[in-house]
Parts: sequence; structure tokens; C-alpha cells
Amino acid sequence: MAARLGVNPTSLYNHVPNRAAMIEDVRALVSAGIDSEPLRSLPWEEGLRAWARSYRRAFARHARAIPLLMTERASTPVLLSGYEDFVVAAEAAGWKSSDVLPLLTAFENFILGSVLDMSGPAVVFDPTGQEDDFPRFAAAFQTLADEDPADPVATRAFERGLDMLIAAARPR
Amino acid sequence: MAARLGVNPTSLYNHVPNRAAMIEDVRALVSAGIDSEPLRSLPWEEGLRAWARSYRRAFARHARAIPLLMTERASTPVLLSGYEDFVVAAEAAGWKSSDVLPLLTAFENFILGSVLDMSGPAVVFDPTGQEDDFPRFAAAFQTLADEDPADPVATRAFERGLDMLIAAARPR
Repeated sequence: MAARLGVNPTSLYNHVPNRAAMIEDVRALVSAGIDSEPLRSLPWEEGLRAWARSYRRAFARHARAIPLLMTERASTPVLLSGYEDFVVAAEAAGWKSSDVLPLLTAFENFILGSVLDMSGPAVVFDPTGQEDDFPRFAAAFQTLADEDPADPVATRAFERGLDMLIAAARPR
Repeated sequence: MAARLGVNPTSLYNHVPNRAAMIEDVRALVSAGIDSEPLRSLPWEEGLRAWARSYRRAFARHARAIPLLMTERASTPVLLSGYEDFVVAAEAAGWKSSDVLPLLTAFENFILGSVLDMSGPAVVFDPTGQEDDFPRFAAAFQTLADEDPADPVATRAFERGLDMLIAAARPR
């Protein structure tokens, strides 16, 4: 970061107390794009869908920050405020307090994995030359040739997984 | 990698043709731990569960490789062989060829996001000092103090999300 700003690394610490605080500032910047208002205003399933989509969009512009952010515990108020909305909505949907953070983490894992996926090549597989060995996989791969460029496999995978998680997002 | 081996970077290219091939070798090494046999031998849902758990275990030992692996298209036979098993099992469960790769990618995004999560701090949140602002989140966080060390939140989150995905893993 110092190199990018053209300053001495120690100069950064005139502005932030330590590395962890700097990471929290990055987290705050990225998290500001997550819209948790739908969790307060919409039915549970619809709120989840709008929140998860905005979460993916917010991180999509900063995919390379994800591994960094996962090295430190999250405490920035802008993110915790969204978590509070998630917890209140999950409890209203019937989840126990002790089950809410595993549920939240499951959604976040899926969303952040989806962001990493979309940050790589548009198609992440390549069976070229191995069609005889893996015929059903190669046939599925071939269908990607016809896909709508406005609806790439990364987006269809995200929407598919989100549909699946949301279909099961009430306690049984 | 050359620094780690104590050799000149160009020496690496006596063994692999290029950077992409080296990444495929890393992918082959990591993917060898994924057991796709349950997708061939067990009912769809049970096969998915066993495959996904082995996938998470295989990558858990190499979490830092994930962002690297996502920069290149996967072509190593050891991984494509497992994908072939997934596609055959998904088609047997009723999925169309064109829907199979979004489904596979949704599972992979969740699994790889879960691996990144478990590679960071055991608890990834910290509302300390902000309990009044975020009371329901803080209460949920407090329940983690009682958790079974053998069943940490990262594992419960993985199992919860996997349950949810598997509950919805047949075409509607």
C-alpha cells in the first residue's frame, strides 16, 4: 500500500495505528456497498436474495481483498450493522440465537466463493482434448458455448446456489 | 516457488513448460485428495455430502492456493475425472446437461469459501465494545463462547450450508 501511494511504509502509521486497523478500514470501504435494508423491510427470503446480491456486487469490485480480509476478525461498525439486520431477520424467521452465526457464515462463504469465481476466467474449466475420457462433463461444457453473454455461468451458478440456500433458509 | 527451492526461476522451466502448467500441477496435487467415488456408489444426496466433505478437507491443507488456482482454467485429469462423476450423478438425478456446471460451480463456490473461512481466525467476528449498538448480533456472538471446540463455528457453518444445498439439490 505504501508503494502504491509512493510513501515510506512507516508513514502509513501516522494515519492508522496498526495493520489490523488498516485491514478494518479496507473492510469498511468494501462493506459500505452491502445493502442490508431489504433484510429489515422485505419478507425473509426476498430480503436474503437482495442482501446477498448486493453483497456479491460490493465485493466483486475488490475480489483480491477477500483473502486479506479473512485473516482478521471483523469489527467495523458498517459491517456489524448489516450483521445485526441479518440476525434480527433470522430470529424473526425462527432461528435460535446459537444457530444464526453458522447460518450467516454459510451464506457469506457461498457469496465470497462466488466472488472469487467471477474474478477468474469466465469459464473455469477446459476439457479440450479429453472429451473421450470425460464425455458427460465435455457435453455439459459444450453447452456453455451457447450461453447468453449477459448471463454467464458464474452468474447462473451464483443464482442457482442462492436459490438453493434460500429454499432451505428456514429452520426445520 | 524458485526461492523456496533455492534455484533460479528459469530452472523451473526445465520441468514445466509454463506458469499455467505449473498451476495445473498444483491443482492436481490438491485435487488428488477429493474423493468422488461416493458420487458413483451412493444415492445423490449422500454422495454429494461425502464428496463435498472430502473436497473441503483436500483444500483445507492448501487454502492459500485457492486464489492462485482460480486464475487459470482447470484441465488436470485428476480433477476432470471427479467432475465427470459429478455430472453423471447429477444427470441421473434429473438435471439437464446445461444446468450441471452452474450446479457444480455453486457447490464449489460454497466449499472453497468455507475453506477460506476456516483458514482465518477461528471466530471471524468481534463485536466487543459495540454490544449496545448491535445487541442481537452480540447475543449470537456470545453463544460461540460455549461452543464445542471439536465442532467450531466454521465446521457448523459448512455443515449447515451443505445441508441447505443438498436439501435443494434436485431439479424442481
